[in-house]
Order: sequence, then C-alpha cells, then structure tokens
Amino acid sequence: MYYIGIDVGGMSIKAGVTDKDGNVLHKTTLVTKGEYTKEYTISRDIHALIVKLLQESNIAESQIAAIGIGQAGSIDSARGIINYWNNIPMKNVHVVEELHAWHSCPIFIDNDANVAALGECVFGAAKGFDNVLLITLGTGVGSGIIIDGKIYRGEYGAGAEAGHMGIVMDGEPCTCGRRGCWEAYASVSALIRQTKAAMAAHPESQMNAIAAQMGEVNGITSFKAARAGDRAAQEVVAQYIRYVAEGLISLQNIFRPQMFLIGGGISKEGEYLTAPLEKLVYEGMFDKETGDPLKIRPAALHNDAGILGAAALAIKSV
Amino acid sequence: MYYIGIDVGGMSIKAGVTDKDGNVLHKTTLVTKGEYTKEYTISRDIHALIVKLLQESNIAESQIAAIGIGQAGSIDSARGIINYWNNIPMKNVHVVEELHAWHSCPIFIDNDANVAALGECVFGAAKGFDNVLLITLGTGVGSGIIIDGKIYRGEYGAGAEAGHMGIVMDGEPCTCGRRGCWEAYASVSALIRQTKAAMAAHPESQMNAIAAQMGEVNGITSFKAARAGDRAAQEVVAQYIRYVAEGLISLQNIFRPQMFLIGGGISKEGEYLTAPLEKLVYEGMFDKETGDPLKIRPAALHNDAGILGAAALAIKSV
Repeated sequence: MYYIGIDVGGMSIKAGVTDKDGNVLHKTTLVTKGEYTKEYTISRDIHALIVKLLQESNIAESQIAAIGIGQAGSIDSARGIINYWNNIPMKNVHVVEELHAWHSCPIFIDNDANVAALGECVFGAAKGFDNVLLITLGTGVGSGIIIDGKIYRGEYGAGAEAGHMGIVMDGEPCTCGRRGCWEAYASVSALIRQTKAAMAAHPESQMNAIAAQMGEVNGITSFKAARAGDRAAQEVVAQYIRYVAEGLISLQNIFRPQMFLIGGGISKEGEYLTAPLEKLVYEGMFDKETGDPLKIRPAALHNDAGILGAAALAIKSV
Repeated sequence: MYYIGIDVGGMSIKAGVTDKDGNVLHKTTLVTKGEYTKEYTISRDIHALIVKLLQESNIAESQIAAIGIGQAGSIDSARGIINYWNNIPMKNVHVVEELHAWHSCPIFIDNDANVAALGECVFGAAKGFDNVLLITLGTGVGSGIIIDGKIYRGEYGAGAEAGHMGIVMDGEPCTCGRRGCWEAYASVSALIRQTKAAMAAHPESQMNAIAAQMGEVNGITSFKAARAGDRAAQEVVAQYIRYVAEGLISLQNIFRPQMFLIGGGISKEGEYLTAPLEKLVYEGMFDKETGDPLKIRPAALHNDAGILGAAALAIKSV
C-alpha cells in the first residue's frame, strides 16, 4: 500500500505518493498564488491534485491506504476542519468531509508545523525519538510538539504556538497583536529587521555589500558576513542566537524533550547555529545534572519535508 | 481496598489513608524540621509513618492497594528515585526500592507539584477534565501538567518547570541562577519584594500598617490593603497579576489546556485574583476565537492537597 502526503501552503499545494518507509515515488505541485477565492475551492484544488498525482504516478486509488494533509493555519485535526488561516481569508472549512465526497480512504489533516515535527520523528533527524520539539524559524516561529510519538495539539488544535511565548514583557510588537513574543525576536523576519538596523549603524560592514550583491537583505545576510569575520555581523548573529536560545530555555524547562530540532531555511547554517545554541541553552536550563546531554539539531527533511510530514501523519494515523 | 498518600515536605511528612473516592479516613504527621541527616533516613521516616498510620487507623497493610508519594525536588518517577532535592542535601535516593524492603504493595513517587495537579483532576477543581495545568504560587512557582489525564514529566522527570520560563530577558535574578524567570516575578517571594518596595516608596500606604499589625510582610499584605482601597497596594496587586498573566499567556499558547488552576496560599484570594487574570490572559492569547472560553480557577484541595494528590497518583497508577 502507498500513502499520499499533501502540503498546502500559501503559494502552492504540493502532493507526493510515498511508501511506508518515506520514499517519495512521485510528486507534483499546483501553483495557487494564494488564489483560493471561495471557501470550498481549497478542497477542489486538493482533489484535483490527488487525481493528477495518481494519473502521473500510475497508481490506482485502491492502493492508497491513507491521505495526510499538512496545512498552514489553525487546524482542528480531530474534526478535520481548518479553523482559520490568517494569510488567506478562510474560516471553518470542513476539508476532510469535503474531500470524502471524492475519496473514500482515510484522510487526516493537521497543522504544517505539527506534521513537520512528526515527519522528522518518523523519517528525519529525530528518527527513533518520541519526545521531540521542532522549532521552525521562518516568517514566524512555528512549533511542532511530539509527546510519546504523537502530535500534541491542545484543545481544538489551538495549542503548540510556542512562537507566541513571551520572552520580553512589553517588548517588540508581534504580528499576533501582543508585545514581546519569541516570534518578534527569533523569526527570520526579526533577524532581517535586526540585520537592517546593524547595516545602518555600520555602513562599513560587509553585510551592506552582501545585501547589494544578493539584491535584498535576507536571513542569510548576517550569517554570511559573520562567517567571513565581519564584526558587526557577528554581533547580529550572536544576539539573534541569544533570542532563539531564550525561548528554547523556556521550552527545555517546560518539556525537557529528548531533542530539539531547528527547521526553516536558516537551519542550513548547521552547527554554526546549533553549537552556540546548545551552549546557551545548557547554561540557562534548570537541573543540568539530570539526564542525557541536551541535543539541538538541524531538521533533516528539507525539500520534501511537507510531503513526508503529511505522509507520516497518514501512516501513523491508520 | 484503600490507598496511602504521603506528602514529603521540607519541614514535615504527612500521610493519609484514603478510599478510591478521595475520602481521607485517617491522617498523621511526622515533624522532621528538615533533619534528614543521611540519604537513607527519608525512607526510614516514611516507613515509620506508614506503620504509625496503619496502627492508628486500624487498617491492615493487606488492605492497601498502593502507596503514592508526593515529594519536593527533582523526581524520576519511572525509576522511583529522588534525583536531588535543593532544600535538603540529598541526591540519587532510591526511595521506592528502599521502601519495598518493608512494604510489598505497589509504591509510586512523583514531584509534589505533579501530584497536586493530578489530585485536582481526580478529586478537586478540575474533576472531569484531563488537560489541565496547575500553577502553584509560593516560595517559587511550581507547575503540574496533566495531558490526557496523565502527569507530563519530561525526560527523567526533569520537565514541568514552568516557573523557569523566561518572561523578561536579562531581568531579575532567579534562584536557579538565570535572570528573568517567571518565578522571579510571579512567586509569593517576588510579591513580597514588590510589596516592600512599594511600602518604602509610599509610607502613607495601608500596607505599612497591615504589615506592622501582622508582624511581617507576606503574600497577603498587598491584597488586603488593595481590597481596602489603598491605591499603592492596588498598583502592586495589578502589576503582580500582570506578571502572573504573562507566564500564563505563554502556557496558554503552548498547551491550550482545558483549564488552568492556581494553587498556593494566594489562591484563597479567589476571583479577586482569577477574574483579572482571565481578562489579561484572554487579551494576550493567540487565536481567541477557537474553542471554549478560557478558564482560570483557584485550586480546591487545600489542607489535604498533598495527601490527596499522592493518593491520586497511587489510584491512577495501579
């Protein structure tokens, strides 16, 4: 039997057929550019993509054991509903029920950060571990929490929003409307803001040249200059890592997981990011003497993370 | 069959016999004043108290289905070990194994904050709920996390230390050695510090008279004066409640539990404490529109909380 993993993002929907070991046999993409004009369009789009995927891969629908969907936004996985999606106006969409009009196999949906964490536990950097937190540093700060090998969701799937822990009371404004959230300091958006401020304060910094060459300031700008020995960039990176560590220390003290994974494009910085993070979190954590050494690792499933996470949801749910 | 619940604190050990419905049939106390001079003394003391309890209550040991122990400090409940106890020098004590030299029924041990949370779910203010956080405001800030009706402990039982989340990066020093922990702002020790500062700044405040009358500044001083209309005290209480709310917002966003309970002596302030807390946490929380209304309630098991929590651990573990 095979599984279908579907990754619904703001700009596109990706779908892949996998086996139970996480091999992606075939994948296909639908570019949507956020144009989900009506509430029900999203189910029709997903359905069309499933049909296309099966045709292209020459696999019969009867060979599909289950379909998993990883979806941005607030998802009620128990009821198969998109509560809402802040990027695209959409509320209370019964995706699973709607898809069952066309597809009879079991269908599961969950938040994209949750399925990414599950995917890493089943196929990726946390294979063999079952108490794991995946923190995704991107436009925001996402979190997926795996407890006893299962996704922790909170009531109505509205939990696991660790990006909205406070780390600086009354601090920087956050997109959620509150001040001082971890996301307002540790997201790549925040890093870009921090980088731009340092570029303005240090016109001589290599960050300016790198940004000019790349045509933009992005999450890599400061890291690239810091690795090249630029002092101002090293300060930006060191302070950014302190912000990331601040939230990880809280999560370490609350959850004491077996492992933290760092996802998002910035995780490609590898040990340049995770080694100082491990040092800072170890220094700040409660009860250092008990248990195994702290582990902070980059996530491993890069390009296919969304598809494999959604497939892992399907595999673990049936 | 009956159960024994044992509450091991710094100054005394309390033990009670209960039935499965949480009725305490008999209880007894051993005052220790922290004099656990050798590592093994604690097991001997607990054993002696069990013998005394059974004699006084006229119940045969064969009628005891299980014994539960709630113990301050870092506890590895899976292995039945006190990892360490910061108040009293004690490390790696195999309490359960040692007690089995005298008692053959199943024996379970867990952190006192954890069993208190379980006790509230089984017998107290959260009866019928199974995703609950109990936050105990005392000398420190303790937390007990119940997920799916079970205690969440983290690896080696070293998790559930929400008092050591950061809320003000690089803020007030905490007893754990770090700065800015929730405990450094929201514990009763912190409230006393905040009260003393306001008393010095406002010599005319009723807090000064109340403290003189009570012979000390304690957790009630500011609340008492605030209820009587004292402006400076109202500011202390309002700011303290903001600190408590700051941590609760983070926990709400991470866990989205069915209910928060507030324990510790200060919980006797009831709605005067919980109503403004609910308002602030609701204002600050992520995704307000999904799910049931936020619930923050005072813990209900006051004097027998330790015994009933430990008994609940025994009842739920066999």
